[in-house]
Amino acid sequence: MFERGKLLYEGKAKRLYDVINDPDVLWLEFKDSLTAFNAQKKGDFTGKGLVNSQIASLIFKHLQQKGISSHWIQDVGPANTVVMRLEMIPLEVVVRNRIAGSLAKKFGKTEGEVLPGPLVEFYLKDDALEDPFISDDQIAALGIVKDSKVLGKLKNLALKVNTELKALFDSVQLDLVDFKIEVGFDRSKNVLLADEITPDSCRLWDQTTGEKMDKDRFRRDLGRVKESYEEVLARLQKKIQK
Amino acid sequence: MFERGKLLYEGKAKRLYDVINDPDVLWLEFKDSLTAFNAQKKGDFTGKGLVNSQIASLIFKHLQQKGISSHWIQDVGPANTVVMRLEMIPLEVVVRNRIAGSLAKKFGKTEGEVLPGPLVEFYLKDDALEDPFISDDQIAALGIVKDSKVLGKLKNLALKVNTELKALFDSVQLDLVDFKIEVGFDRSKNVLLADEITPDSCRLWDQTTGEKMDKDRFRRDLGRVKESYEEVLARLQKKIQK
Repeated sequence: MFERGKLLYEGKAKRLYDVINDPDVLWLEFKDSLTAFNAQKKGDFTGKGLVNSQIASLIFKHLQQKGISSHWIQDVGPANTVVMRLEMIPLEVVVRNRIAGSLAKKFGKTEGEVLPGPLVEFYLKDDALEDPFISDDQIAALGIVKDSKVLGKLKNLALKVNTELKALFDSVQLDLVDFKIEVGFDRSKNVLLADEITPDSCRLWDQTTGEKMDKDRFRRDLGRVKESYEEVLARLQKKIQK
Repeated sequence: MFERGKLLYEGKAKRLYDVINDPDVLWLEFKDSLTAFNAQKKGDFTGKGLVNSQIASLIFKHLQQKGISSHWIQDVGPANTVVMRLEMIPLEVVVRNRIAGSLAKKFGKTEGEVLPGPLVEFYLKDDALEDPFISDDQIAALGIVKDSKVLGKLKNLALKVNTELKALFDSVQLDLVDFKIEVGFDRSKNVLLADEITPDSCRLWDQTTGEKMDKDRFRRDLGRVKESYEEVLARLQKKIQK
């Protein structure tokens, strides 16, 4: 049994707590809040934390069955999960299958265009700097990741996750446009998935209607945010738990 | 003898003309204008075109002696040069030896910090998009450079140019902080240096006084812009033409 300890950090969508008498794990509480544009836009809906924690747990369990390790250990109540404490790498790793969002804007491209293959991007995790895009060579030059082999491992992991997630979402009639993962080292220096994979961190387009089923509904004021997150969960539950 | 034809394009710092009866070459006229911040800031000084054309020609001649080919063919009068017509690659290639400018700002670093080794960066040449920074993987995914080997060639060329330029400027007591080159293919698909290498496209710091001797004097309103450009030319002339 895990017992929640003191609050370590309150993030935009989660609270992190110690676990009493177990320094190797963390307690995550998913909040009902939604933020966008580096937290300049704020919102929430009742039950959002619960929905996202369920989606994240389903996805991490599914990926573990496919041989992709993550920090997820077990759910410990509604919207509460216990995970491994990792040494985090301060990068957001983005994989894109179609052009959307910042990539479309930055390069003047049409949203929705399919890329010739999955594109991996890194962003430096730094709220004060607004998580700037960073190239492989900049990561090395600035000493963000000391061991040059790690970046290759991150890309391989990101591409493996993409293959599995794409297939999973495809099986529930959702197009995985892009997603973001965060990663960390365990004690043996293995690179593991951390944070969450949810409609907050993925772009998911309904394959029949083309409708956005992710945080873009909040970012772009498209309405039915709660309903879309719940629909993603329902489809995954039906698929995975049947 | 070359004879200047019709104006093809007027850029921020140069005019490009046809050469009559020679489709393989271009006529470049260096203007007295200075621009910064994607042409939002504009200025000029008398003789700037002449100084920059002389610096560019000296540097291209020097690099050719070191085995680095460029589009430069010959000077055809004050501030006027004839160059090979290349199939341009729409990238700006930046090499940095120290952290300065946009890199310092983007990653919250101190200007002047020496990098562990030269850092190569690519920017998409597109005024409307404000020349966005672009990663190797994005260049491939967006089809900016079709042949994946070309990017490696560009990096090698940029690093070779850096080695030679750093030594050259070092010999005239100037620190080469960073510089930008543009490149293109000749008819045999060799990658050649194009555009110019001048205080418009380099950061040069005096090794004794630490003073900036480049376009940052204009960007940051430091005064003595003309005098600094002329000083760079004088030092190079003394070194190269002695």
